[in-house]
Amino acid sequence: MTPATPSFETLRYAVEDGVATITLHRPDQLNAFTAQMMHELIAAFDATDADDNVRAVIVTGSGRAFCAGADLSGGSSTFDFEKRYGASPDTAHRDGGGRVSLRIFRSLKPVIAAVNGPAVGVGVTMQLPMDIRLASTDAKFGFVFARRGITPEAASSWFLSRVVGISTALEWCYTGRVFTAQEAHERGLVRSLHAPDDLLPAAQAIAREIAANAAPVSVAISRQLIWRMAGASHPMEAHKLDSRAIQSRGRSADVKEGVSAFLEKRPAAFPETVSHDMPDFFDWTSEPPFA
Amino acid sequence: MTPATPSFETLRYAVEDGVATITLHRPDQLNAFTAQMMHELIAAFDATDADDNVRAVIVTGSGRAFCAGADLSGGSSTFDFEKRYGASPDTAHRDGGGRVSLRIFRSLKPVIAAVNGPAVGVGVTMQLPMDIRLASTDAKFGFVFARRGITPEAASSWFLSRVVGISTALEWCYTGRVFTAQEAHERGLVRSLHAPDDLLPAAQAIAREIAANAAPVSVAISRQLIWRMAGASHPMEAHKLDSRAIQSRGRSADVKEGVSAFLEKRPAAFPETVSHDMPDFFDWTSEPPFA
Amino acid sequence: MTPATPSFETLRYAVEDGVATITLHRPDQLNAFTAQMMHELIAAFDATDADDNVRAVIVTGSGRAFCAGADLSGGSSTFDFEKRYGASPDTAHRDGGGRVSLRIFRSLKPVIAAVNGPAVGVGVTMQLPMDIRLASTDAKFGFVFARRGITPEAASSWFLSRVVGISTALEWCYTGRVFTAQEAHERGLVRSLHAPDDLLPAAQAIAREIAANAAPVSVAISRQLIWRMAGASHPMEAHKLDSRAIQSRGRSADVKEGVSAFLEKRPAAFPETVSHDMPDFFDWTSEPPFA
Repeated sequence: MTPATPSFETLRYAVEDGVATITLHRPDQLNAFTAQMMHELIAAFDATDADDNVRAVIVTGSGRAFCAGADLSGGSSTFDFEKRYGASPDTAHRDGGGRVSLRIFRSLKPVIAAVNGPAVGVGVTMQLPMDIRLASTDAKFGFVFARRGITPEAASSWFLSRVVGISTALEWCYTGRVFTAQEAHERGLVRSLHAPDDLLPAAQAIAREIAANAAPVSVAISRQLIWRMAGASHPMEAHKLDSRAIQSRGRSADVKEGVSAFLEKRPAAFPETVSHDMPDFFDWTSEPPFA
Repeated sequence: MTPATPSFETLRYAVEDGVATITLHRPDQLNAFTAQMMHELIAAFDATDADDNVRAVIVTGSGRAFCAGADLSGGSSTFDFEKRYGASPDTAHRDGGGRVSLRIFRSLKPVIAAVNGPAVGVGVTMQLPMDIRLASTDAKFGFVFARRGITPEAASSWFLSRVVGISTALEWCYTGRVFTAQEAHERGLVRSLHAPDDLLPAAQAIAREIAANAAPVSVAISRQLIWRMAGASHPMEAHKLDSRAIQSRGRSADVKEGVSAFLEKRPAAFPETVSHDMPDFFDWTSEPPFA
Repeated sequence: MTPATPSFETLRYAVEDGVATITLHRPDQLNAFTAQMMHELIAAFDATDADDNVRAVIVTGSGRAFCAGADLSGGSSTFDFEKRYGASPDTAHRDGGGRVSLRIFRSLKPVIAAVNGPAVGVGVTMQLPMDIRLASTDAKFGFVFARRGITPEAASSWFLSRVVGISTALEWCYTGRVFTAQEAHERGLVRSLHAPDDLLPAAQAIAREIAANAAPVSVAISRQLIWRMAGASHPMEAHKLDSRAIQSRGRSADVKEGVSAFLEKRPAAFPETVSHDMPDFFDWTSEPPFA
């Protein structure tokens, strides 16, 4: 299934060689986050999930920033949801960054952040439900909420301690200071640092390694298992789900191809697709209700 | 609100420049933990939460130790709660270290441990619900419980693996060995090592960075969000809470000041206080019942 | 209690100096995992739990591999449980690796993996509920599931992110690539690297340090507290359990000996045993139902 490439105003969206690249694109505003960008990011991840040509997703920024945080052109009413997102019951009470984070959490494709420059506020919290973060040596990060009189959003209080440990999570949110890519690397927020020109190629290399070798349905199930079990109380929860996953995959056309290719020492060509072949014993896109 | 400075027998308590310093003070007994120290530590954190002048808390030890663990002058009856804490239903069945840990968990102010010397048994487990640990190069640590015939207490089985990972947590508790500040640093128990004379200044520098820049209500909410979400099953739990937090803070006097100060490139002077302005959509001091 | 030493076909099992060594023993098949090995591993951990002479357990492999993963001699029907494990309701729907993982999770003795060579698929996921992993410089690791068209099993979606963090867990499962012992060490999967000849002695040194110093009942309770609290929602859950554990241990013969030995500066000789003296306020071997 190859849907039409969607087009957006605050994002650029392109698919090449199995990799979708979503570029935050308000370069004159340092890609500051707006209500429109929220809607478009959610739509972009709907598009990557729906397009079987997309085997991995890269998120990066246009120009010199990744994302400078919430667009403050509305001044101090920026963080008043009703003014920001409108008064409909569906939107008036929900943080927009969190809606993006939860959408990325449900992604069926791997998501790699290529952090090309400053990433502050929602510009960094939106990265936390992404799977892997690579950073340019020019990148900077800041969980600046307490310096603005607000609080960590985008469900980052759940994600951040799982990525960098609780002590670093607290320190960064208490001080609100902007810190270097090197500190982000040392504390585990980013996997690796790259010269600016090497950043996208490094992200693409990981994305293409996935696209070239891994069965798409296996990758989608793996993503959901690992993220969802990060909050599970007992490994029995994983055993219940992965038993059914293995049972389903163990009778699939994919495993026939995967094992045969391995035994024949040749690359596998997996026939199954995320849009048609996700096993139905679990609703992989479910989430608990907001209310 | 500036309450009277409380006075204690087993602790010293002082507030200066927005920072409360709680010093374990039984230096001739290496600050060994007693039932009285338990009650006084709980009261000290009640005091720091109630005093709006306190923007951060440092905990350290008098003399050459941080805390040598439970006072063993009662011999092997030390760990019999009824003999130790009295027979009242409220105390006879609860570990005293755990009562301290849970009180620190509920703190509305950031808590920094400045570990000046040996910290063994409850001397180290009481540090785990603190947010950031700095250590002197003279510090030593030991989860010695199994060598005494008892078990990890102070709710440390919940905290320790979240601070240092499960494998290190298990190794330290199995062997019960006393280890160096350097090992504590390499394994992630402490953030940074300092020459003995540099330890308190380093802790104060972090505390003052928080006091100078961050909105107190934002810091208090951040602390509770991050600690409570460390055990939450799904990021939706964070989204529900932080949406309401942002919605509340987004209409506050603090955000008006925070955003204005940022746009005007000047330091912010946040008007709101923890004692009056914590949003009431959640009981920030709640905890599940013991029984 | 010294039960007869069990004997197995796919494992070697020996107890010496308080340490049980379980050796995966199908060297001509690189110790590939079979249904028989599953049953024998579960029985081996039943044996180590039942034998009070066993104070710690080491798991390693015969010959040049640790475990090459599922035995693929059944071709692509390897992952069809009904064909693999038989059609009984108890086994037809449960992943065999997960049954091993959950049995190790319930172990009352510390478990140390000594990874002597390649460990792939279930050969590495079975290590995750072990407490400490040491690796030979000859070891290799691979979470290769997505390259075979299947998914992570053995409850590894619960364990892996708790050992190495979520970002590394996802990267390894997405790419499915085989990686070096050095990468495993840098990312936190293994505690330390050793020359091949030094591997078992290093594992034995840790096991003997535990055997020589720690009360067996304390160690068993510590293991269960720390693993079970890794998934608990609030530290109150730990406080409830460890209060009862301390209360029980605080009146035990072990604490009398442990505190006396400490005060007299002599080694302790703990009288209590796992087979007789585990406190009964909690069922330490319980697990949630599969169904």
